[in-house]
Amino acid sequence: MGLDEAAQKPHDRLAAWLAQDMEAVNALIRTRMASEHAPRIPEVTAHLVEAGGKRLRPMLTLAAARLCGYQGDHHVRLAATVEFIHTATLLHDDVVDESERRRGRPTANLLWDNKSSVLVGDYLFARSFQLMVETGSLRVLDILANASAVIAEGEVLQLTAAQDITTTEAIYLQVVRGKTAALFAAATEVGGVIAAATEEQVQALRHYGDALGIAFQIVDDLLDYGGTAATIGKNTGDDFRERKLTLPVIKAIAKADAEERAFWARTIGKGDQRDGDLDHAIALMSRHGAMEDARQQALDWAAQARDALHVLPDHPLRAMLSDLAAYVVARIN
Amino acid sequence: MGLDEAAQKPHDRLAAWLAQDMEAVNALIRTRMASEHAPRIPEVTAHLVEAGGKRLRPMLTLAAARLCGYQGDHHVRLAATVEFIHTATLLHDDVVDESERRRGRPTANLLWDNKSSVLVGDYLFARSFQLMVETGSLRVLDILANASAVIAEGEVLQLTAAQDITTTEAIYLQVVRGKTAALFAAATEVGGVIAAATEEQVQALRHYGDALGIAFQIVDDLLDYGGTAATIGKNTGDDFRERKLTLPVIKAIAKADAEERAFWARTIGKGDQRDGDLDHAIALMSRHGAMEDARQQALDWAAQARDALHVLPDHPLRAMLSDLAAYVVARIN
Repeated sequence: MGLDEAAQKPHDRLAAWLAQDMEAVNALIRTRMASEHAPRIPEVTAHLVEAGGKRLRPMLTLAAARLCGYQGDHHVRLAATVEFIHTATLLHDDVVDESERRRGRPTANLLWDNKSSVLVGDYLFARSFQLMVETGSLRVLDILANASAVIAEGEVLQLTAAQDITTTEAIYLQVVRGKTAALFAAATEVGGVIAAATEEQVQALRHYGDALGIAFQIVDDLLDYGGTAATIGKNTGDDFRERKLTLPVIKAIAKADAEERAFWARTIGKGDQRDGDLDHAIALMSRHGAMEDARQQALDWAAQARDALHVLPDHPLRAMLSDLAAYVVARIN
Repeated sequence: MGLDEAAQKPHDRLAAWLAQDMEAVNALIRTRMASEHAPRIPEVTAHLVEAGGKRLRPMLTLAAARLCGYQGDHHVRLAATVEFIHTATLLHDDVVDESERRRGRPTANLLWDNKSSVLVGDYLFARSFQLMVETGSLRVLDILANASAVIAEGEVLQLTAAQDITTTEAIYLQVVRGKTAALFAAATEVGGVIAAATEEQVQALRHYGDALGIAFQIVDDLLDYGGTAATIGKNTGDDFRERKLTLPVIKAIAKADAEERAFWARTIGKGDQRDGDLDHAIALMSRHGAMEDARQQALDWAAQARDALHVLPDHPLRAMLSDLAAYVVARIN
């Protein structure tokens, strides 16, 4: 590996290695998001799909399949499937969260309306379903059906846990699996399944995706209290304003004294937020080492992801996936 | 058939004949709508599922399977699948339409919020997907994936056509297929497929469901301009207020003179509605025979549904399905 290559982000190296496959995925996405009679569908979808998302999930599927020696073309269908499911959940999430910005641009619910976001999300989910049926693999369908249920359950859980300051780390983990890890895990697992990898390898790929997704989400939660709109594409403190019980908040509440508990009950529990509350929340999280603990947890999950890869074939893609897990947490390291 | 039995509504006779199967379907629905950690899910679902809906769609699946001699238990899974898909679309529809009443009760989006309706709908769709995977039939999955896409596309189409007074009957038909007929057709078709019926019979079942669904929806559209909240569970004129281009409106617009066209452009196109507009709209539709034409079209579709049944086995369920098609249009006959 030359210096130039080593200096590249693992995500870019994956993109370069998988360029031809990704081109096929993008072509398939464009074809399948079309609708002859309802032009609103490709308009809304294109706004999101072409907004320069990282296409991380479809790349995970492609990488898993290729790493296990797959030579067919179903991995392209599955990669498009995974991106459609992801896009559908983003459309619905933005409605639920009343978000106004996504990937640095106004959200679809803001540009069009909530109705379009709900229905186009449903359409993309149905299209993803058609794509996976085309692979003819009942096991793949089973994995993605289960992932869909975990995703939706996690979203509802997040909604109801959002204002509940008694939320535990166990519930947090379930929300995170729904929000991110379930689709990451399914994305890598179906890559292995379609490549007819060994059962041990399929489980390793699933474990990798799950741990990567959890690490990714904890980092996202941390950055929400320390990033800027420019670096993370959303505004610092969004989670606080939306009264989300993210990992650093849960850890700070667990160590709160009576006065601090009253603060969390007012700001997160009741949603009564005033000027200076966000800064105070960050100060409390730092005081109790909640940020540092959450950071350590993210590093542990990333290490688990890397370890899982050992049973997979020695392959440049394996090294890239390992580097990706390291890179995800590098932003907080 | 005794006099008492003949006097019963075909729907009730189907329910009586399929009582044992429907009990299994209801038990499965209750099990699968549960969520250990997110109690909001069964709350919202139960509100809708137990509101005394007619369970027409799952009965169509059960009837189709039994009529073709099916003896296994996958028809129960498919019936629950179909009811879950239907419930999911109702939850999303009510958000999109900003409806306040459904089946004579306040809607979930009113009792909880839009967020819960969107996410619980997603959850039910995912659960339906798990159920159909359990049948192990790729053909069934293909049929239901395609139906899901037609449903979602039809909903988007309805959204964008809602304010467009140039909407044609062809587009109306597509909207109606998405709104009702696609799921009816899939419900009957998968019943035949799971029973390993002949290809001719499977197509006949599909045709029956499609035609029944279209007849059903045209009748619904007609009643919206002539029913009462008590008889149809929604308020007269809802479609007008929501600026929907339903069949009688499309027919009246096609025959409108300049002044009438201006009326439709103002009320439906621009949404500028004043006192007395609804009555005037009904008067225009009557004047041009639009109501009568739409009524005739509903009768034709119902006749098609009945004709399709001829290739199916001679069976009490076949007679009930035939009577059901007659009954659907009896409300306007």
